[in-house]
Amino acid sequence: MTRPRAYLAGPDVFLPDPKRAAAAKKELCLRYGIDGVFPLDAELDLGKLAPRDAGLAIGRANESLIRSCQLVIANLTPFRGPSADPGTAYEVGFARALGLPVFGYSNAATDFATRARAFVSERPDGLAIESFGLFDNLMLANAIEESGGALVAVAAPEAELHTSLAAFEKCLEAARRRLTASRTA
Amino acid sequence: MTRPRAYLAGPDVFLPDPKRAAAAKKELCLRYGIDGVFPLDAELDLGKLAPRDAGLAIGRANESLIRSCQLVIANLTPFRGPSADPGTAYEVGFARALGLPVFGYSNAATDFATRARAFVSERPDGLAIESFGLFDNLMLANAIEESGGALVAVAAPEAELHTSLAAFEKCLEAARRRLTASRTA
Repeated sequence: MTRPRAYLAGPDVFLPDPKRAAAAKKELCLRYGIDGVFPLDAELDLGKLAPRDAGLAIGRANESLIRSCQLVIANLTPFRGPSADPGTAYEVGFARALGLPVFGYSNAATDFATRARAFVSERPDGLAIESFGLFDNLMLANAIEESGGALVAVAAPEAELHTSLAAFEKCLEAARRRLTASRTA
Repeated sequence: MTRPRAYLAGPDVFLPDPKRAAAAKKELCLRYGIDGVFPLDAELDLGKLAPRDAGLAIGRANESLIRSCQLVIANLTPFRGPSADPGTAYEVGFARALGLPVFGYSNAATDFATRARAFVSERPDGLAIESFGLFDNLMLANAIEESGGALVAVAAPEAELHTSLAAFEKCLEAARRRLTASRTA
């Protein structure tokens, strides 16, 4: 049986050694019967491109990679602000419109309103804070819910906020359960 | 001829008087021959729902509204961090996968790397900063580019960062030009 392909969305691409991060995630995926697809997998030859064109080429390649997958597992850990990385949020929306199940995890377990209030107390902006008891913006929460995915939030030690794979592994367990259930259904 | 419907994505829903903000944007849209569709237009009866269910219901309604539109005009002004609002980023990804043209505007005209460096200098995270000379995360920039949309960035006075409609109106001009061109093509 072919293993389902999961696009591993997330700011992990910005880690100091993204190839090592990719390898660690892919190895874990295999233990759960899933082929992990990392945003850097396209192996583009960007050497001769102007920076702007290189950035856009990566965007196109990531969209193609998502289209080649059967599900998305997104790292929705808060990134430079109260919310998930916006590139990851974009990819979750993209996958959702394609009809893919979206699984998400966060290495922070606080709710969104709590984080947003803390942020805004230092930088007031006069705008309302979404307070629905959800883990992040409601569009992200709804995508996971409506697509039949799952959200796993486990607080990691602060020094491991962007590197811990504990919540990711629990998310893989949830994905395997759902994929097995839909296969037997 | 029927006016094209544009989904007006953005954190404008968090303004103190979102209905007034919606009315102002819709009025401007009409001047450019476009029907503006605001995220609050669904008029949901949320009164009896638990907060979590209310949040998810809004998410579902917004997705339906996007599906009912022919284009998206997204407010991508930086929101509580160096990047656009993640709910808006989600909606741009959703629209892109549906094949809709994505127009975006920002009331800040700095490039993304400059904003991210300023943010990280106060809260170091050890992660790389995307530096392609783009206005925000490359997925957002690519969506606009590949979908045949346009990006308009005009620096607004700081007090009007979330309320100025100057860049929005320029974005409407660009959208009308593209829509007219594709109609005559």
